[in-house]
Amino acid sequence: MAKGITKRSEDYSRWYTDVIAAGQLADYAPVKGCMVIKPNGYALWEKMQAALDKMFKETGHVNAYFPLFIPESFMQKEAAHVEGFAPECAVVTHGGGKKLEEPLYIRPTSETIIWSTYKNWIQSYRDLPILINQWANVVRWEMRTRLFLRTTEFLWQEGHTAHATAQEAEEETLKILRIYTKFAEEYMAIPVIQGIKTEKERFAGAVRTYCIEAMMQDKKALQAGTSHYLGQNFAKAFDVTFQDKDGEVKYVYATSWGVSTRLIGAIIMTHGDDNGIIMPPKLAPTQLIIIPITKGEHERNQILEYIEKITISWNGKFSFKVDDREGYRPGWKFNEGEQLGIPIRLEIGPKELQHSQVVLARRDTGEKMTVSLDHLSSTIEKTLDQIHHQLYKRALKFREDNSFLIDDYQQFKTQIEDPGGFFWMHWCGNTSCEDRLQEETKATIRCIPLDNPYREAGKCLLCGAPSRERVLVAKAY
Amino acid sequence: MAKGITKRSEDYSRWYTDVIAAGQLADYAPVKGCMVIKPNGYALWEKMQAALDKMFKETGHVNAYFPLFIPESFMQKEAAHVEGFAPECAVVTHGGGKKLEEPLYIRPTSETIIWSTYKNWIQSYRDLPILINQWANVVRWEMRTRLFLRTTEFLWQEGHTAHATAQEAEEETLKILRIYTKFAEEYMAIPVIQGIKTEKERFAGAVRTYCIEAMMQDKKALQAGTSHYLGQNFAKAFDVTFQDKDGEVKYVYATSWGVSTRLIGAIIMTHGDDNGIIMPPKLAPTQLIIIPITKGEHERNQILEYIEKITISWNGKFSFKVDDREGYRPGWKFNEGEQLGIPIRLEIGPKELQHSQVVLARRDTGEKMTVSLDHLSSTIEKTLDQIHHQLYKRALKFREDNSFLIDDYQQFKTQIEDPGGFFWMHWCGNTSCEDRLQEETKATIRCIPLDNPYREAGKCLLCGAPSRERVLVAKAY
Repeated sequence: MAKGITKRSEDYSRWYTDVIAAGQLADYAPVKGCMVIKPNGYALWEKMQAALDKMFKETGHVNAYFPLFIPESFMQKEAAHVEGFAPECAVVTHGGGKKLEEPLYIRPTSETIIWSTYKNWIQSYRDLPILINQWANVVRWEMRTRLFLRTTEFLWQEGHTAHATAQEAEEETLKILRIYTKFAEEYMAIPVIQGIKTEKERFAGAVRTYCIEAMMQDKKALQAGTSHYLGQNFAKAFDVTFQDKDGEVKYVYATSWGVSTRLIGAIIMTHGDDNGIIMPPKLAPTQLIIIPITKGEHERNQILEYIEKITISWNGKFSFKVDDREGYRPGWKFNEGEQLGIPIRLEIGPKELQHSQVVLARRDTGEKMTVSLDHLSSTIEKTLDQIHHQLYKRALKFREDNSFLIDDYQQFKTQIEDPGGFFWMHWCGNTSCEDRLQEETKATIRCIPLDNPYREAGKCLLCGAPSRERVLVAKAY
Repeated sequence: MAKGITKRSEDYSRWYTDVIAAGQLADYAPVKGCMVIKPNGYALWEKMQAALDKMFKETGHVNAYFPLFIPESFMQKEAAHVEGFAPECAVVTHGGGKKLEEPLYIRPTSETIIWSTYKNWIQSYRDLPILINQWANVVRWEMRTRLFLRTTEFLWQEGHTAHATAQEAEEETLKILRIYTKFAEEYMAIPVIQGIKTEKERFAGAVRTYCIEAMMQDKKALQAGTSHYLGQNFAKAFDVTFQDKDGEVKYVYATSWGVSTRLIGAIIMTHGDDNGIIMPPKLAPTQLIIIPITKGEHERNQILEYIEKITISWNGKFSFKVDDREGYRPGWKFNEGEQLGIPIRLEIGPKELQHSQVVLARRDTGEKMTVSLDHLSSTIEKTLDQIHHQLYKRALKFREDNSFLIDDYQQFKTQIEDPGGFFWMHWCGNTSCEDRLQEETKATIRCIPLDNPYREAGKCLLCGAPSRERVLVAKAY
């Protein structure tokens, strides 16, 4: 059903919720903080999974599946990890009608259950590397939830790799960061900044956390993926050693990395407009919606035949839907197609039939053109490609227009409220200044960028101590 | 690592466990009753998912995702359902460090959470049918577990459809049963018997449960998939009504259906031999293992080049692996390839290089033949097809050789113990006789077959009352 969508300029947060409802993407579940991912949202997730899974497999990773349950004692083996995750866990205390001897945590992430298993799989350097990914659901008990962005249960992939050397593990961490970047930019059409998290923002149990950060249309940052170098922390916690080529027994090096259904939120908030979500063409569940415009049964049959001839000639090249439902006006269907985020609409009436052409409308610009059948397939291909690039360019321009160098704390305090944005500031490297920043402004250091455009000496915005480079600061989801 | 496998004739149950270990399919997890699905097992599941998912989508179904958690009060809304499932549920009592107001059950199946959601989605006949499937993990607290066959957590798909009429829902139930049958026979190469469950064996909350039953090599039955016609039971429990074309408000009709990772157990126990699992060619993660047999660096390079030339010419047609690891003898690699269940092995040494040929060995028969490069691709294709049919034929013959008509209860009591098998017996239709059968012999009525070859009058094997047809009886997993 087509629904009204609040304008972004009126109420951004309500716009987001409306877009999800109108796009038939998800619903709040009757269980607090959980969501139902509806077919249009899930089909998008399936396309995202397929693209990522292919990239993981091309780089030598395989999939496996580890249990949902983690014994309490496992959670407690890595000190930083348990401190970070235990407070937000759901706990199973009863099973089969009896109280359990040991409570089971529902996985908030799987490092502990996986490293307790790797202990049995790894004896020699010959067993390394292990390059495993899993697609799974995880649970983190959240107080304030928002569909896709922060839900008690969510879907994700989590990679967990084991290596003989620190260098190899570090390379893996960065390889995955590059895959996430490629996926964000070349599939989701979302420009991202790659960087390292500060110690304060690091994953609980990691030595170093790398991330990609994107700007949403309300100018807040969204962390779109993380890749962790875990060093030997989990190998030591679970006593996972191997005999190396040199005969010595050593602890194994680890990485872990993940992206989640949160990325659907990123797509909505990067590309969406006042008419709803815009699906990036490479991930769109439906790339084309075809709407016959007819009067009377005879004309209807003729035009449906014409449409069938056209779509058969594509030979599976595009994913399309023909909306031939009766009892809905074309305008209503146009609106629904827009709210579903379908990149291209084809309108086909008697005039188009007569002249062997179709009317093609772009979801991103609203532009309409008449295309002759001879050029239709190539025009669609080109247009999908143009939409992808247009979405990316628009998002990049928006980020650039809303990024600022800042060297005055008072000015920052004003600007972070209005207009908001990404701020490049000098920081001394101390957590105390980072804490103060967050307390006083609610902004956080999103990352220390990898290819830092501002690697230049300066003074910490908060304490004035020397700084070697600027860091990226923003309010974040 | 190649491992020893106990012979089936020595200890069938240990053979099963050994095959899973040697085939690198799964491990017991450190959490009671749970399993870790290892990469070779998970890759098989991925192929099964892909084939089933395609069939579901071709028949108009879409995927979605519903929450893991079910509030206790939801479970209690359908009387038979709660009675059947609540005792085997895992229960979350704490979340985010606090005791929950209402305990949450981990889904053992999702009828209740889904029908509480459908209530919001269905108002009019225009909203019907809903044809949704989900791929998910479920938890059933099991006392005695066996890898794949019965584990506390397992992976499955569960379809949940909503219809305006009883007839349409019944048709859906049978459509899915046919899909499951096609999948079992044409992909898994497992012959199955389609039937209806007795009232006693019916899904908790269903009006009718249809199933497919297969014979394992120990002559026990394995239920390989179920499709339930739920009538209006869940619609009434969750008050899901719609306004029909005639203006009347009616309750919605439902179906649900599922298959699980248990099917991996079925593949092992139908086709496996004393050397391990045999992967059915259409689902094999690796269809071909290619083993270079070389002495010295120069020869090795030549042969690897030769192999590359061959595999490139296939152009993605087959899934293969080249086992060019050094430090392992060819015989060791042959053995490992067999234990992994790879349908075809190619051996390539200097002689094969010289004569532009390869040695091809079949996993199912052990047969070896020399094939010239000119015919290699077509021979592989043909051989994969032959292996599929050979596996199916062998399994069907085994079932036929071990199926018996039985009309004497004393004789049955002996025969069910030794030699065992499928028994076709007359039954009066009363649960009391069914209960007695199970108590006295541990055998159960597997189903009342749909295309019953024995639709003939007779007398109940237990009480002598009249019977219209024979039913299928066996011990079961």
